[in-house]
Amino acid sequence: MTDTLELVSENKSFGGWLRRYRHRSEVLDCDMVFGIYLPPQAETQSVPLLWWLSGLTCTDENFMQKAGAHRVAAELGMAIICPDTSPRGTDLPGEHDSYDFGSGAGFYVDATEAPWNQHYHMYSYVVDELPDLVHNAFPLSGQEAISGHSMGGHGALVCALHNPERYQSVSAFAPICHPLNCSWGEKAFGGYLGDDRDTWKAWDACELIRANGAPHSLLVDQGGADNFLEAGQLQPEALEAACGEVGGDLTLRHQPGYDHSYFFIASFIEDHLRFHFRHL
Amino acid sequence: MTDTLELVSENKSFGGWLRRYRHRSEVLDCDMVFGIYLPPQAETQSVPLLWWLSGLTCTDENFMQKAGAHRVAAELGMAIICPDTSPRGTDLPGEHDSYDFGSGAGFYVDATEAPWNQHYHMYSYVVDELPDLVHNAFPLSGQEAISGHSMGGHGALVCALHNPERYQSVSAFAPICHPLNCSWGEKAFGGYLGDDRDTWKAWDACELIRANGAPHSLLVDQGGADNFLEAGQLQPEALEAACGEVGGDLTLRHQPGYDHSYFFIASFIEDHLRFHFRHL
Repeated sequence: MTDTLELVSENKSFGGWLRRYRHRSEVLDCDMVFGIYLPPQAETQSVPLLWWLSGLTCTDENFMQKAGAHRVAAELGMAIICPDTSPRGTDLPGEHDSYDFGSGAGFYVDATEAPWNQHYHMYSYVVDELPDLVHNAFPLSGQEAISGHSMGGHGALVCALHNPERYQSVSAFAPICHPLNCSWGEKAFGGYLGDDRDTWKAWDACELIRANGAPHSLLVDQGGADNFLEAGQLQPEALEAACGEVGGDLTLRHQPGYDHSYFFIASFIEDHLRFHFRHL
Repeated sequence: MTDTLELVSENKSFGGWLRRYRHRSEVLDCDMVFGIYLPPQAETQSVPLLWWLSGLTCTDENFMQKAGAHRVAAELGMAIICPDTSPRGTDLPGEHDSYDFGSGAGFYVDATEAPWNQHYHMYSYVVDELPDLVHNAFPLSGQEAISGHSMGGHGALVCALHNPERYQSVSAFAPICHPLNCSWGEKAFGGYLGDDRDTWKAWDACELIRANGAPHSLLVDQGGADNFLEAGQLQPEALEAACGEVGGDLTLRHQPGYDHSYFFIASFIEDHLRFHFRHL
Protein backbone atom coordinates (compact mmCIF):
# COMPACT_ATOMS: atom_id res chain seq x y z
CA MET A 1 0.00 0.00 0.00
CA THR A 2 2.73 2.44 0.88
CA ASP A 3 4.19 1.97 -2.61
CA THR A 4 1.16 3.37 -4.37
CA LEU A 5 -0.73 5.41 -1.80
CA GLU A 6 0.83 8.41 -0.10
CA LEU A 7 -0.99 9.52 3.05
CA VAL A 8 -1.83 13.23 2.78
CA SER A 9 -3.70 13.71 6.07
CA GLU A 10 -5.68 11.81 8.66
CA ASN A 11 -8.30 12.89 11.18
CA LYS A 12 -10.02 10.80 13.76
CA SER A 13 -13.77 11.22 13.38
CA PHE A 14 -16.55 9.46 15.29
CA GLY A 15 -14.16 6.75 16.41
CA GLY A 16 -13.04 6.02 12.85
CA TRP A 17 -10.58 7.73 10.54
CA LEU A 18 -10.79 10.03 7.57
CA ARG A 19 -7.66 9.50 5.54
CA ARG A 20 -6.70 11.29 2.34
CA TYR A 21 -4.28 9.66 -0.08
CA ARG A 22 -2.37 10.83 -3.13
CA HIS A 23 -1.64 8.33 -5.85
CA ARG A 24 -0.62 8.16 -9.48
CA SER A 25 -3.57 7.49 -11.77
CA GLU A 26 -2.63 5.72 -14.98
CA VAL A 27 -6.02 6.16 -16.59
CA LEU A 28 -6.03 9.90 -15.88
CA ASP A 29 -2.27 10.30 -16.39
CA CYS A 30 -1.90 12.57 -13.36
CA ASP A 31 -1.63 12.48 -9.58
CA MET A 32 -4.95 12.31 -7.74
CA VAL A 33 -6.13 12.62 -4.14
CA PHE A 34 -9.12 10.78 -2.69
CA GLY A 35 -10.59 10.58 0.79
CA ILE A 36 -11.72 7.43 2.61
CA TYR A 37 -13.67 7.30 5.84
CA LEU A 38 -13.01 4.05 7.66
CA PRO A 39 -15.51 3.39 10.46
CA PRO A 40 -14.33 1.93 13.80
CA GLN A 41 -15.47 -1.53 12.68
CA ALA A 42 -12.76 -1.53 9.98
CA GLU A 43 -10.15 -2.02 12.71
CA THR A 44 -11.28 -5.62 13.12
CA GLN A 45 -13.37 -6.64 10.09
CA SER A 46 -14.02 -5.86 6.45
CA VAL A 47 -16.77 -3.35 5.82
CA PRO A 48 -19.11 -2.39 2.98
CA LEU A 49 -18.36 0.71 0.94
CA LEU A 50 -20.34 3.71 -0.24
CA TRP A 51 -18.88 5.63 -3.17
CA TRP A 52 -19.74 9.32 -3.07
CA LEU A 53 -19.38 11.37 -6.25
CA SER A 54 -19.35 15.12 -5.70
CA GLY A 55 -20.67 17.96 -7.80
CA LEU A 56 -19.23 20.82 -9.81
CA THR A 57 -16.31 22.70 -8.22
CA CYS A 58 -15.90 20.15 -5.43
CA THR A 59 -12.86 18.11 -4.47
CA ASP A 60 -12.61 14.97 -2.35
CA GLU A 61 -13.05 17.17 0.75
CA ASN A 62 -16.48 18.84 0.54
CA PHE A 63 -18.61 15.83 1.39
CA MET A 64 -16.31 14.65 4.16
CA GLN A 65 -16.32 18.07 5.84
CA LYS A 66 -19.91 19.16 5.32
CA ALA A 67 -22.29 16.22 4.94
CA GLY A 68 -22.20 14.97 8.53
CA ALA A 69 -22.03 11.41 7.20
CA HIS A 70 -19.32 10.02 9.47
CA ARG A 71 -21.66 9.71 12.44
CA VAL A 72 -24.03 7.30 10.71
CA ALA A 73 -21.25 5.52 8.80
CA ALA A 74 -19.57 4.86 12.15
CA GLU A 75 -22.80 3.51 13.57
CA LEU A 76 -23.51 1.24 10.60
CA GLY A 77 -19.94 0.24 9.91
CA MET A 78 -19.72 1.56 6.35
CA ALA A 79 -16.67 2.98 4.64
CA ILE A 80 -17.12 5.98 2.35
CA ILE A 81 -14.81 6.98 -0.49
CA CYS A 82 -14.88 10.40 -2.12
CA PRO A 83 -12.91 10.66 -5.36
CA ASP A 84 -12.01 14.07 -6.75
CA THR A 85 -14.24 15.50 -9.49
CA SER A 86 -11.70 15.78 -12.33
CA PRO A 87 -8.07 15.18 -13.22
CA ARG A 88 -5.73 17.60 -11.42
CA GLY A 89 -2.37 19.18 -12.04
CA THR A 90 -2.87 19.21 -15.77
CA ASP A 91 -2.99 22.42 -17.74
CA LEU A 92 -5.00 21.95 -20.89
CA PRO A 93 -6.10 25.02 -22.85
CA GLY A 94 -9.07 26.61 -21.06
CA GLU A 95 -9.16 23.84 -18.46
CA HIS A 96 -9.51 26.20 -15.52
CA ASP A 97 -11.68 28.88 -17.14
CA SER A 98 -15.19 27.57 -16.30
CA TYR A 99 -16.75 26.19 -13.16
CA ASP A 100 -18.79 23.75 -15.26
CA PHE A 101 -16.17 22.36 -17.63
CA GLY A 102 -12.61 21.11 -17.19
CA SER A 103 -11.08 21.04 -13.71
CA GLY A 104 -13.66 20.32 -11.03
CA ALA A 105 -16.12 19.25 -13.72
CA GLY A 106 -15.10 15.88 -15.14
CA PHE A 107 -18.74 14.73 -15.39
CA TYR A 108 -17.71 11.08 -14.81
CA VAL A 109 -17.40 10.33 -18.51
CA ASP A 110 -14.52 9.02 -20.62
CA ALA A 111 -13.66 11.86 -22.96
CA THR A 112 -13.08 11.06 -26.61
CA GLU A 113 -12.30 14.55 -27.89
CA ALA A 114 -8.80 16.07 -27.90
CA PRO A 115 -7.29 17.46 -25.79
CA TRP A 116 -9.59 16.16 -23.05
CA ASN A 117 -9.07 12.52 -23.98
CA GLN A 118 -5.49 12.78 -22.68
CA HIS A 119 -6.72 12.91 -19.08
CA TYR A 120 -10.51 13.13 -18.67
CA HIS A 121 -11.47 9.50 -18.08
CA MET A 122 -13.26 9.93 -14.79
CA TYR A 123 -15.68 7.09 -15.49
CA SER A 124 -12.90 4.54 -15.84
CA TYR A 125 -11.13 6.04 -12.86
CA VAL A 126 -14.18 5.73 -10.60
CA VAL A 127 -15.40 2.36 -11.86
CA ASP A 128 -12.14 0.51 -12.57
CA GLU A 129 -8.85 2.00 -11.46
CA LEU A 130 -9.71 3.39 -8.05
CA PRO A 131 -11.75 0.33 -6.97
CA ASP A 132 -8.84 -1.97 -7.82
CA LEU A 133 -6.54 0.23 -5.79
CA VAL A 134 -8.69 0.55 -2.69
CA HIS A 135 -9.83 -3.06 -2.56
CA ASN A 136 -6.20 -4.08 -2.28
CA ALA A 137 -5.40 -1.46 0.33
CA PHE A 138 -8.31 -1.36 2.77
CA PRO A 139 -10.48 -3.88 4.65
CA LEU A 140 -13.46 -3.69 2.29
CA SER A 141 -15.99 -6.49 2.03
CA GLY A 142 -16.75 -6.06 -1.67
CA GLN A 143 -20.31 -4.89 -1.00
CA GLU A 144 -20.69 -1.52 -2.69
CA ALA A 145 -23.25 1.23 -3.08
CA ILE A 146 -22.97 4.55 -4.89
CA SER A 147 -24.38 8.02 -4.38
CA GLY A 148 -23.64 11.57 -5.36
CA HIS A 149 -24.79 15.16 -5.69
CA SER A 150 -25.74 17.12 -8.79
CA MET A 151 -23.01 16.29 -11.38
CA GLY A 152 -22.06 13.49 -8.99
CA GLY A 153 -25.67 12.32 -8.85
CA HIS A 154 -25.53 11.98 -12.63
CA GLY A 155 -22.24 10.13 -12.17
CA ALA A 156 -23.68 7.76 -9.59
CA LEU A 157 -26.65 6.96 -11.82
CA VAL A 158 -24.50 6.34 -14.88
CA CYS A 159 -21.96 4.21 -12.99
CA ALA A 160 -24.78 2.12 -11.52
CA LEU A 161 -26.63 1.77 -14.81
CA HIS A 162 -23.52 0.54 -16.60
CA ASN A 163 -22.73 -1.89 -13.78
CA PRO A 164 -26.04 -3.24 -12.49
CA GLU A 165 -24.42 -6.17 -10.64
CA ARG A 166 -21.69 -4.08 -9.09
CA TYR A 167 -23.57 -1.65 -6.83
CA GLN A 168 -26.28 -3.05 -4.56
CA SER A 169 -28.05 0.31 -4.47
CA VAL A 170 -27.79 3.81 -5.85
CA SER A 171 -29.01 7.15 -4.58
CA ALA A 172 -28.59 10.79 -5.47
CA PHE A 173 -29.17 14.31 -4.23
CA ALA A 174 -30.42 16.73 -6.88
CA PRO A 175 -28.85 14.75 -9.73
CA ILE A 176 -28.47 16.02 -13.27
CA CYS A 177 -30.93 13.45 -14.56
CA HIS A 178 -30.93 14.12 -18.27
CA PRO A 179 -27.66 15.83 -19.20
CA LEU A 180 -28.10 15.59 -22.95
CA ASN A 181 -31.08 17.89 -22.55
CA CYS A 182 -29.70 20.64 -20.28
CA SER A 183 -27.08 23.34 -20.74
CA TRP A 184 -24.60 21.88 -18.23
CA GLY A 185 -24.73 18.54 -20.00
CA GLU A 186 -24.64 19.99 -23.49
CA LYS A 187 -21.52 21.98 -22.69
CA ALA A 188 -19.78 19.06 -20.99
CA PHE A 189 -20.75 16.32 -23.41
CA GLY A 190 -20.09 18.53 -26.43
CA GLY A 191 -16.62 19.27 -25.11
CA TYR A 192 -15.68 15.82 -23.88
CA LEU A 193 -17.55 13.67 -26.42
CA GLY A 194 -17.88 15.84 -29.52
CA ASP A 195 -20.79 16.90 -31.68
CA ASP A 196 -22.39 13.52 -32.37
CA ARG A 197 -25.19 13.51 -29.84
CA ASP A 198 -25.80 9.82 -30.37
CA THR A 199 -22.59 9.13 -28.46
CA TRP A 200 -23.94 11.16 -25.53
CA LYS A 201 -26.69 8.66 -24.83
CA ALA A 202 -24.28 6.23 -23.19
CA TRP A 203 -23.76 8.87 -20.47
CA ASP A 204 -27.36 9.94 -19.90
CA ALA A 205 -29.28 8.25 -17.08
CA CYS A 206 -32.67 8.60 -18.75
CA GLU A 207 -31.44 7.15 -22.04
CA LEU A 208 -29.67 4.29 -20.25
CA ILE A 209 -32.80 3.44 -18.26
CA ARG A 210 -34.88 3.35 -21.44
CA ALA A 211 -32.28 1.15 -23.16
CA ASN A 212 -31.31 -1.19 -20.31
CA GLY A 213 -33.81 -0.82 -17.49
CA ALA A 214 -33.73 1.03 -14.19
CA PRO A 215 -31.44 0.40 -11.21
CA HIS A 216 -32.90 -2.16 -8.83
CA SER A 217 -33.06 0.30 -5.94
CA LEU A 218 -32.91 4.02 -6.47
CA LEU A 219 -33.51 6.82 -3.94
CA VAL A 220 -33.42 10.45 -5.08
CA ASP A 221 -33.92 13.58 -2.99
CA GLN A 222 -34.61 16.88 -4.70
CA GLY A 223 -34.88 20.21 -2.93
CA GLY A 224 -37.90 22.29 -3.84
CA ALA A 225 -36.04 25.61 -3.62
CA ASP A 226 -33.06 24.48 -5.68
CA ASN A 227 -32.22 27.22 -8.18
CA PHE A 228 -30.77 24.66 -10.59
CA LEU A 229 -34.08 22.82 -10.57
CA GLU A 230 -35.85 25.96 -11.70
CA ALA A 231 -33.13 26.52 -14.31
CA GLY A 232 -33.86 23.13 -15.87
CA GLN A 233 -30.46 21.59 -15.16
CA LEU A 234 -31.74 18.71 -13.03
CA GLN A 235 -35.03 17.45 -14.50
CA PRO A 236 -36.09 14.83 -11.96
CA GLU A 237 -39.36 14.57 -13.92
CA ALA A 238 -37.39 13.09 -16.82
CA LEU A 239 -35.92 10.45 -14.51
CA GLU A 240 -39.36 9.71 -13.13
CA ALA A 241 -40.77 9.33 -16.63
CA ALA A 242 -37.97 7.02 -17.75
CA CYS A 243 -38.30 4.85 -14.66
CA GLY A 244 -42.05 4.80 -15.13
CA GLU A 245 -41.71 3.56 -18.69
CA VAL A 246 -39.59 0.56 -17.68
CA GLY A 247 -41.24 -0.11 -14.31
CA GLY A 248 -38.17 0.92 -12.33
CA ASP A 249 -38.17 1.12 -8.53
CA LEU A 250 -37.58 4.85 -8.00
CA THR A 251 -38.24 6.66 -4.74
CA LEU A 252 -38.18 10.35 -5.66
CA ARG A 253 -38.68 12.67 -2.72
CA HIS A 254 -39.36 16.37 -3.13
CA GLN A 255 -38.09 18.28 -0.10
CA PRO A 256 -39.85 21.65 0.11
CA GLY A 257 -37.67 24.65 0.91
CA TYR A 258 -34.31 22.92 0.48
CA ASP A 259 -31.71 24.31 -1.91
CA HIS A 260 -28.72 22.81 -3.74
CA SER A 261 -26.27 23.18 -0.84
CA TYR A 262 -24.60 20.77 1.54
CA PHE A 263 -27.15 21.80 4.17
CA PHE A 264 -29.69 19.93 2.06
CA ILE A 265 -27.39 16.93 1.78
CA ALA A 266 -26.63 16.92 5.51
CA SER A 267 -30.34 17.04 6.31
CA PHE A 268 -31.04 13.77 4.47
CA ILE A 269 -27.75 11.88 4.28
CA GLU A 270 -28.75 9.66 7.18
CA ASP A 271 -31.74 8.39 5.18
CA HIS A 272 -29.45 7.58 2.26
CA LEU A 273 -26.88 5.75 4.36
CA ARG A 274 -29.60 3.64 5.98
CA PHE A 275 -31.17 3.00 2.56
CA HIS A 276 -27.86 1.70 1.24
CA PHE A 277 -27.21 -0.32 4.38
CA ARG A 278 -30.56 -2.08 4.00
CA HIS A 279 -29.60 -3.16 0.48
CA LEU A 280 -26.15 -4.51 1.27
CA MET B 1 -35.52 44.00 12.00
CA THR B 2 -35.12 44.85 8.33
CA ASP B 3 -33.79 48.27 9.32
CA THR B 4 -30.72 46.91 11.06
CA LEU B 5 -30.24 43.38 9.75
CA GLU B 6 -29.59 42.67 6.08
CA LEU B 7 -30.18 39.05 5.08
CA VAL B 8 -27.06 37.72 3.34
CA SER B 9 -28.16 34.15 2.70
CA GLU B 10 -30.50 31.49 3.99
CA ASN B 11 -30.46 27.71 3.77
CA LYS B 12 -33.05 25.30 5.03
CA SER B 13 -31.33 22.73 7.24
CA PHE B 14 -32.94 19.90 9.23
CA GLY B 15 -36.32 21.57 9.01
CA GLY B 16 -34.99 24.86 10.38
CA TRP B 17 -33.11 27.72 8.80
CA LEU B 18 -29.54 28.92 8.77
CA ARG B 19 -29.64 32.64 8.11
CA ARG B 20 -26.68 34.98 7.78
CA TYR B 21 -27.12 38.68 8.43
CA ARG B 22 -24.98 41.74 7.86
CA HIS B 23 -25.35 44.66 10.25
CA ARG B 24 -23.56 47.77 11.35
CA SER B 25 -21.72 47.28 14.63
CA GLU B 26 -21.32 50.46 16.65
CA VAL B 27 -18.96 48.94 19.18
CA LEU B 28 -16.67 47.58 16.44
CA ASP B 29 -17.24 50.52 14.09
CA CYS B 30 -17.56 48.29 11.03
CA ASP B 31 -20.05 46.05 9.24
CA MET B 32 -20.27 42.50 10.57
CA VAL B 33 -21.90 39.25 9.48
CA PHE B 34 -23.20 36.61 11.86
CA GLY B 35 -25.03 33.32 11.36
CA ILE B 36 -28.07 32.10 13.25
CA TYR B 37 -29.55 28.62 13.11
CA LEU B 38 -33.24 28.71 13.98
CA PRO B 39 -34.67 25.26 14.69
CA PRO B 40 -38.14 24.30 13.41
CA GLN B 41 -39.61 25.03 16.86
CA ALA B 42 -38.79 28.73 16.39
CA GLU B 43 -41.63 28.97 13.88
CA THR B 44 -44.14 28.75 16.72
CA GLN B 45 -42.36 29.45 20.02
CA SER B 46 -39.35 31.15 21.54
CA VAL B 47 -36.29 28.95 21.90
CA PRO B 48 -33.12 28.88 24.00
CA LEU B 49 -29.86 30.00 22.44
CA LEU B 50 -26.34 28.62 22.26
CA TRP B 51 -23.60 31.09 21.44
CA TRP B 52 -20.72 29.52 19.53
CA LEU B 53 -17.39 31.34 19.42
CA SER B 54 -15.03 30.11 16.72
CA GLY B 55 -11.27 29.84 16.65
CA LEU B 56 -8.41 31.49 14.82
CA THR B 57 -8.93 32.12 11.07
CA CYS B 58 -12.63 31.22 11.22
CA THR B 59 -15.64 33.28 10.23
CA ASP B 60 -19.28 32.85 11.15
CA GLU B 61 -19.47 30.00 8.63
CA ASN B 62 -17.07 27.24 9.76
CA PHE B 63 -19.12 25.88 12.63
CA MET B 64 -22.39 26.04 10.73
CA GLN B 65 -20.95 24.13 7.78
CA LYS B 66 -18.72 21.59 9.49
CA ALA B 67 -19.88 20.83 13.04
CA GLY B 68 -23.01 18.87 12.20
CA ALA B 69 -24.83 20.71 14.99
CA HIS B 70 -28.07 21.54 13.19
CA ARG B 71 -29.40 18.00 13.52
CA VAL B 72 -29.32 18.00 17.31
CA ALA B 73 -30.30 21.66 17.60
CA ALA B 74 -33.38 20.87 15.49
CA GLU B 75 -34.24 17.94 17.72
CA LEU B 76 -33.81 19.89 20.95
CA GLY B 77 -35.22 23.15 19.70
CA MET B 78 -32.16 25.32 20.31
CA ALA B 79 -31.01 28.28 18.28
CA ILE B 80 -27.30 28.72 17.64
CA ILE B 81 -25.55 31.98 16.85
CA CYS B 82 -22.04 32.17 15.41
CA PRO B 83 -20.46 35.63 15.48
CA ASP B 84 -17.43 36.34 13.35
CA THR B 85 -14.01 36.17 15.03
CA SER B 86 -12.85 39.78 14.55
CA PRO B 87 -13.86 43.11 13.10
CA ARG B 88 -13.95 43.05 9.29
CA GLY B 89 -13.45 45.50 6.48
CA THR B 90 -10.98 47.57 8.44
CA ASP B 91 -7.41 47.96 7.33
CA LEU B 92 -5.20 48.67 10.30
CA PRO B 93 -1.41 48.42 9.87
CA GLY B 94 -0.45 44.73 9.87
CA GLU B 95 -4.04 43.65 10.56
CA HIS B 96 -4.02 40.91 7.92
CA ASP B 97 -0.40 39.74 8.26
CA SER B 98 -0.78 36.98 10.87
CA TYR B 99 -3.24 34.16 11.32
CA ASP B 100 -3.07 34.62 15.09
CA PHE B 101 -3.43 38.39 15.45
CA GLY B 102 -5.71 40.97 13.85
CA SER B 103 -8.36 39.84 11.40
CA GLY B 104 -9.75 36.41 12.25
CA ALA B 105 -8.10 36.64 15.67
CA GLY B 106 -9.99 39.10 17.85
CA PHE B 107 -9.54 36.92 20.94
CA TYR B 108 -12.86 38.16 22.40
CA VAL B 109 -11.21 40.97 24.37
CA ASP B 110 -11.77 44.74 24.39
CA ALA B 111 -8.52 46.19 23.08
CA THR B 112 -7.04 49.17 24.87
CA GLU B 113 -3.98 49.72 22.71
CA ALA B 114 -3.95 51.88 19.58
CA PRO B 115 -4.72 51.28 16.80
CA TRP B 116 -6.64 48.14 17.81
CA ASN B 117 -8.86 50.00 20.27
CA GLN B 118 -10.58 51.69 17.30
CA HIS B 119 -12.32 48.44 16.38
CA TYR B 120 -11.24 45.38 18.37
CA HIS B 121 -13.93 45.19 21.05
CA MET B 122 -15.08 41.65 20.39
CA TYR B 123 -15.96 41.03 24.04
CA SER B 124 -18.45 43.89 24.12
CA TYR B 125 -19.75 42.87 20.72
CA VAL B 126 -20.42 39.28 21.80
CA VAL B 127 -21.70 40.03 25.30
CA ASP B 128 -23.61 43.29 24.80
CA GLU B 129 -24.24 44.59 21.31
CA LEU B 130 -25.06 41.42 19.42
CA PRO B 131 -27.32 39.99 22.16
CA ASP B 132 -29.36 43.20 22.23
CA LEU B 133 -29.72 43.03 18.48
CA VAL B 134 -30.75 39.38 18.22
CA HIS B 135 -33.08 39.34 21.18
CA ASN B 136 -35.10 42.04 19.48
CA ALA B 137 -35.07 40.29 16.13
CA PHE B 138 -35.61 36.58 16.76
CA PRO B 139 -37.91 34.40 18.89
CA LEU B 140 -35.39 33.73 21.67
CA SER B 141 -36.48 32.74 25.15
CA GLY B 142 -33.65 34.48 27.00
CA GLN B 143 -32.11 31.20 28.14
CA GLU B 144 -28.52 31.19 26.96
CA ALA B 145 -25.48 28.93 26.95
CA ILE B 146 -22.06 29.51 25.43
CA SER B 147 -19.42 27.32 23.83
CA GLY B 148 -16.47 27.63 21.51
CA HIS B 149 -13.31 26.17 20.05
CA SER B 150 -9.69 27.02 20.76
CA MET B 151 -9.54 30.85 20.78
CA GLY B 152 -13.34 30.68 20.94
CA GLY B 153 -13.15 28.25 23.85
CA HIS B 154 -11.13 30.89 25.68
CA GLY B 155 -13.76 33.40 24.64
CA ALA B 156 -16.62 31.26 25.91
CA LEU B 157 -14.91 30.76 29.26
CA VAL B 158 -14.14 34.45 29.71
CA CYS B 159 -17.62 35.57 28.68
CA ALA B 160 -19.17 33.08 31.10
CA LEU B 161 -16.83 33.96 33.95
CA HIS B 162 -17.59 37.67 33.62
CA ASN B 163 -21.34 37.00 33.43
CA PRO B 164 -22.07 34.09 35.78
CA GLU B 165 -25.83 34.75 35.83
CA ARG B 166 -26.12 35.22 32.11
CA TYR B 167 -25.16 31.82 30.68
CA GLN B 168 -26.75 28.73 32.23
CA SER B 169 -23.81 26.59 31.12
CA VAL B 170 -20.50 26.82 29.31
CA SER B 171 -18.48 24.31 27.34
CA ALA B 172 -15.44 24.32 25.13
CA PHE B 173 -13.47 22.26 22.65
CA ALA B 174 -9.70 22.48 23.05
CA PRO B 175 -9.87 25.94 24.63
CA ILE B 176 -6.89 28.21 25.17
CA CYS B 177 -7.19 27.87 28.93
CA HIS B 178 -4.42 30.11 30.16
CA PRO B 179 -3.63 32.68 27.45
CA LEU B 180 -1.34 34.83 29.57
CA ASN B 181 0.99 31.87 29.75
CA CYS B 182 1.16 30.73 26.08
CA SER B 183 2.58 32.27 22.94
CA TRP B 184 -0.79 32.81 21.21
CA GLY B 185 -2.08 34.67 24.26
CA GLU B 186 1.09 36.64 24.83
CA LYS B 187 1.06 37.89 21.26
CA ALA B 188 -2.64 38.75 21.30
CA PHE B 189 -2.83 40.28 24.76
CA GLY B 190 0.44 42.17 24.29
CA GLY B 191 -0.92 43.65 21.08
CA TYR B 192 -4.47 44.37 22.17
CA LEU B 193 -3.88 45.18 25.86
CA GLY B 194 -0.30 46.41 26.05
CA ASP B 195 2.70 45.45 28.14
CA ASP B 196 1.18 45.56 31.62
CA ARG B 197 0.49 41.90 32.20
CA ASP B 198 -1.67 42.67 35.22
CA THR B 199 -4.35 43.92 32.83
CA TRP B 200 -4.27 40.59 31.01
CA LYS B 201 -5.64 38.74 34.03
CA ALA B 202 -9.16 40.00 33.38
CA TRP B 203 -9.10 37.99 30.12
CA ASP B 204 -7.56 34.75 31.39
CA ALA B 205 -9.92 31.95 32.41
CA CYS B 206 -7.58 30.49 35.02
CA GLU B 207 -6.99 33.85 36.68
CA LEU B 208 -10.70 34.66 36.63
CA ILE B 209 -11.58 31.32 38.21
CA ARG B 210 -9.04 31.90 40.97
CA ALA B 211 -10.38 35.41 41.57
CA ASN B 212 -14.13 34.85 41.23
CA GLY B 213 -14.83 31.11 41.26
CA ALA B 214 -15.54 28.59 38.51
CA PRO B 215 -18.55 28.48 36.19
CA HIS B 216 -21.42 26.50 37.68
CA SER B 217 -21.35 23.92 34.88
CA LEU B 218 -18.38 23.46 32.61
CA LEU B 219 -17.73 20.73 30.03
CA VAL B 220 -14.42 20.66 28.15
CA ASP B 221 -13.29 18.19 25.50
CA GLN B 222 -9.63 18.01 24.54
CA GLY B 223 -8.22 15.84 21.78
CA GLY B 224 -5.21 13.76 22.71
CA ALA B 225 -3.53 14.16 19.30
CA ASP B 226 -4.02 17.93 19.12
CA ASN B 227 -0.74 19.49 17.95
CA PHE B 228 -1.56 22.72 19.79
CA LEU B 229 -1.89 20.75 23.02
CA GLU B 230 1.63 19.45 22.58
CA ALA B 231 2.81 22.96 21.71
CA GLY B 232 1.55 24.27 25.05
CA GLN B 233 -1.07 26.64 23.64
CA LEU B 234 -4.08 25.03 25.34
CA GLN B 235 -3.06 23.90 28.84
CA PRO B 236 -6.20 22.12 30.06
CA GLU B 237 -4.15 21.09 33.10
CA ALA B 238 -4.05 24.75 34.17
CA LEU B 239 -7.84 24.95 33.92
CA GLU B 240 -8.16 21.74 35.89
CA ALA B 241 -5.84 23.08 38.59
CA ALA B 242 -7.69 26.40 38.86
CA CYS B 243 -11.08 24.68 39.08
CA GLY B 244 -9.65 22.27 41.62
CA GLU B 245 -8.47 25.11 43.83
CA VAL B 246 -11.90 26.71 44.01
CA GLY B 247 -13.96 23.50 43.96
CA GLY B 248 -15.38 24.18 40.50
CA ASP B 249 -17.58 21.69 38.66
CA LEU B 250 -15.40 20.89 35.65
CA THR B 251 -15.89 17.86 33.43
CA LEU B 252 -12.67 17.61 31.41
CA ARG B 253 -12.63 14.78 28.90
CA HIS B 254 -9.48 13.67 27.09
CA GLN B 255 -10.37 12.17 23.73
CA PRO B 256 -7.53 9.95 22.53
CA GLY B 257 -6.51 10.29 18.90
CA TYR B 258 -8.54 13.41 18.13
CA ASP B 259 -6.87 16.50 16.71
CA HIS B 260 -7.75 20.20 16.65
CA SER B 261 -10.02 20.01 13.60
CA TYR B 262 -13.76 20.26 13.07
CA PHE B 263 -13.86 16.46 12.77
CA PHE B 264 -13.12 16.45 16.51
CA ILE B 265 -15.84 19.01 17.16
CA ALA B 266 -18.38 17.15 15.02
CA SER B 267 -17.64 13.91 16.88
CA PHE B 268 -18.65 15.39 20.24
CA ILE B 269 -20.91 18.36 19.54
CA GLU B 270 -24.00 16.28 20.28
CA ASP B 271 -22.76 15.73 23.84
CA HIS B 272 -22.25 19.47 24.26
CA LEU B 273 -25.68 20.40 22.93
CA ARG B 274 -27.36 17.90 25.23
CA PHE B 275 -25.22 19.13 28.14
CA HIS B 276 -26.39 22.69 27.54
CA PHE B 277 -29.98 21.61 27.04
CA ARG B 278 -29.99 19.86 30.41
CA HIS B 279 -28.90 23.09 32.11
CA LEU B 280 -31.43 25.39 30.48
